[in-house]
Amino acid sequence: MPGTLDSTHDPALRSWVDAANDPASDFPIQNLPFGVFRRTRSPDSAAAAPRVGVAIGDQIVDIVACADAGLLDRDGAVAADLCRSGRLDELMASGRDSARSLRQSLSALLRSDSAAVRANRSIASSILTPMADAELLLPATIGDYTDFYASIAHATNVGSMFRPDHPLLPNYKWVPIGYHGRASSIVVSGTPVRRPTGQTRDAADEAPRVGPSRRLDYELEVGVFIARGNALGHPVPIAEAEQKAFGLCIVNDWSARDIQTWEYQPLGPFLAKSFATTVSPWVVTLDALEPYRVPAFTRAAGDPAPLPYLASADDARSGGLDITLEVLLSSEKMRANGTPAMRVSRGSFREMYWTIAQLIAHHTSNGCNLRPGDLLASGTVSGSARESRGCLLERTWRSTEPLTLPTGESRTFLEDGDEVVMRGYCERPGRARIGFGECRGRVERGVGRGE
Amino acid sequence: MPGTLDSTHDPALRSWVDAANDPASDFPIQNLPFGVFRRTRSPDSAAAAPRVGVAIGDQIVDIVACADAGLLDRDGAVAADLCRSGRLDELMASGRDSARSLRQSLSALLRSDSAAVRANRSIASSILTPMADAELLLPATIGDYTDFYASIAHATNVGSMFRPDHPLLPNYKWVPIGYHGRASSIVVSGTPVRRPTGQTRDAADEAPRVGPSRRLDYELEVGVFIARGNALGHPVPIAEAEQKAFGLCIVNDWSARDIQTWEYQPLGPFLAKSFATTVSPWVVTLDALEPYRVPAFTRAAGDPAPLPYLASADDARSGGLDITLEVLLSSEKMRANGTPAMRVSRGSFREMYWTIAQLIAHHTSNGCNLRPGDLLASGTVSGSARESRGCLLERTWRSTEPLTLPTGESRTFLEDGDEVVMRGYCERPGRARIGFGECRGRVERGVGRGE
Repeated sequence: MPGTLDSTHDPALRSWVDAANDPASDFPIQNLPFGVFRRTRSPDSAAAAPRVGVAIGDQIVDIVACADAGLLDRDGAVAADLCRSGRLDELMASGRDSARSLRQSLSALLRSDSAAVRANRSIASSILTPMADAELLLPATIGDYTDFYASIAHATNVGSMFRPDHPLLPNYKWVPIGYHGRASSIVVSGTPVRRPTGQTRDAADEAPRVGPSRRLDYELEVGVFIARGNALGHPVPIAEAEQKAFGLCIVNDWSARDIQTWEYQPLGPFLAKSFATTVSPWVVTLDALEPYRVPAFTRAAGDPAPLPYLASADDARSGGLDITLEVLLSSEKMRANGTPAMRVSRGSFREMYWTIAQLIAHHTSNGCNLRPGDLLASGTVSGSARESRGCLLERTWRSTEPLTLPTGESRTFLEDGDEVVMRGYCERPGRARIGFGECRGRVERGVGRGE
Repeated sequence: MPGTLDSTHDPALRSWVDAANDPASDFPIQNLPFGVFRRTRSPDSAAAAPRVGVAIGDQIVDIVACADAGLLDRDGAVAADLCRSGRLDELMASGRDSARSLRQSLSALLRSDSAAVRANRSIASSILTPMADAELLLPATIGDYTDFYASIAHATNVGSMFRPDHPLLPNYKWVPIGYHGRASSIVVSGTPVRRPTGQTRDAADEAPRVGPSRRLDYELEVGVFIARGNALGHPVPIAEAEQKAFGLCIVNDWSARDIQTWEYQPLGPFLAKSFATTVSPWVVTLDALEPYRVPAFTRAAGDPAPLPYLASADDARSGGLDITLEVLLSSEKMRANGTPAMRVSRGSFREMYWTIAQLIAHHTSNGCNLRPGDLLASGTVSGSARESRGCLLERTWRSTEPLTLPTGESRTFLEDGDEVVMRGYCERPGRARIGFGECRGRVERGVGRGE
């Protein structure tokens, strides 16, 4: 009588890792996102080498340890062998099917009625590392990083500040606008971010000044790690595009607005972005997100239909993903006082104008090759509501509507010591919560120069 | 009596590799540029694995073979060990001193009076591969690719076509403008380039069209491979910047002008560039180029002085490099007729507004980390003369001054089957020629779609 069963008592949907059964956990047995970790409490340094794991509750499952203990089925063990390098690169390169086999095999092992664990309770200690005893690393070797501009609300908001008469450029509704980002300066959640120094020039300035940015911002984005990729010269048809997406993470695309304003014409943002980009460490698979599929964003009446190479029959049913995204901010003073971080924005990834499949199909439409581990970011996720604006430039409407923190401090842009935490999760009654964990970064004082 | 000696008879300046003594050779003993090759005539596949070499005349010296035969001095042998991976990555990461030791050691081995070779003439066959029997590969693993815009003539020419009233934007003389490029689609000389498909929209079009680019262009550039790099958050001072440059190559930054025009606002070029970027295979060290140092480009009266972080006392003496750069074009018909390629432009790298040291200091000024093997390209090298314009957009002045080929064919942009060959070399009476070899690519027919 499945219809009458409370799903939270179905043994296939519960784990013997207790914390995974907490409905507030980001990492129930239905999620099992991939990441790379290092044990921080390990006595010998070899054991502290990077290892591939999946998150479950407050624990990390060591995939290679599971394989070595014979706990995976055949397909799972084959996929686990791809994790022996301590990076996700090879698993990503193998395509989404390998990750699916591995998650299925791990799910069988982790469910509350697992025969293997019932037979031998000591298995747990041999394959689990508490998250508290682990350092999380970048999940993959990111060859190229591309940043899109897929939120029409963001593009309209920013455009209206600078071009009130025609906020949205004529190409926006036709072209999934994007640009190449800097891969070398991508860092994992928790890495401090130093305020960048650069050239800026206000309208009143005779000459540019050089010094630490005075308009440092965050940008709330969703990242897509590429799985198998495509060969140079071979575009990916839209119908196959999503198979190229291994999984998603949260991205903070830190931006120095004053540097950007002065440098970006005519070739786009450069040093305003390349000082740091923070990613959350867990890669949530599209399989895990399947229950949170929603129709793609509804284009306004009069908007053009996507061109044929960007049109998918699936869009109306499942082109979007209903991921709730939040930004929390705390100042040094708040943390000293014990004041919890303040939520400054909340929106949903379902409001993006372009789908993930469209971003991939467009990116490769000229023959450009994507490689496993490449990162595509969505661009700032903003919705139509004020509280869903995904960066301070929009949230404070170009500094005209400052935020007031619980301490009475005011913010238009980020101050030294401010910490930004981004979170993403999917939630709906009767379904397991699928969370992303967090993407965290604290601003460190910049080094003055030239002034 | 060195003053009376003809330097071409000095044994230290001649090689026992005969072709290296031809004054027209790009690769005399004074050059010794680094590259990665694979033997194409090798009977067993292990010997056909990628190997690091230097070019000498019409031959390639196998560096690891020299080390294994005990032909290098101690420092040279240590540096040669960094080449065992068959990539230049580790040698680059080790910094310029290692490359210098290796070139010095190889120079002693290759000079006409080499004691080792005099004692055993069979050495030559054990360490040399004829270039005709080798395939050249990408010299390094390129993590990030950055493209600058350092020619003021190019920026002014292009600007004047689109903004006749103010061709040069206000930031140009202050900021070494650059943008992030695509690393995955960088290919080595000789790789065919498929005409990209993309969205374009002419002024008269109601909606954009999708199809093969109709305005395919080349861009003549100089590339800089990064040596040791810098840590994230640690800018490289201008005085140390050039030590980060391992060496130079020629770059063809293929550009689809019609795709670029429609897509580039507001975030810069994306698919107009990422379908292919061709690099020449030999990396010419800055040491080899030392005799061709010239004063940096002279800024016009009234131009601002470089800001302190971009100012170097060396500029007035040696900030520039006098590298002659040429573009040759041949159509399918010309090649069928046996008509030699036609030179369509010739200019010098000394006309760049920003020096290599300035590009590196600026790139890292916000804390951005450069990694060994990263590629920085100069942007299109154009001078003030018409024949020195480094792309067809400029050379044909936006199609208003078409080129006429020897066959009578006319060109505004590239046609299918056209082959572009770029060359770079330094020459002055009494000094050895230092050449770059060539950067070659032929345009293949694109795949139609959507029309």
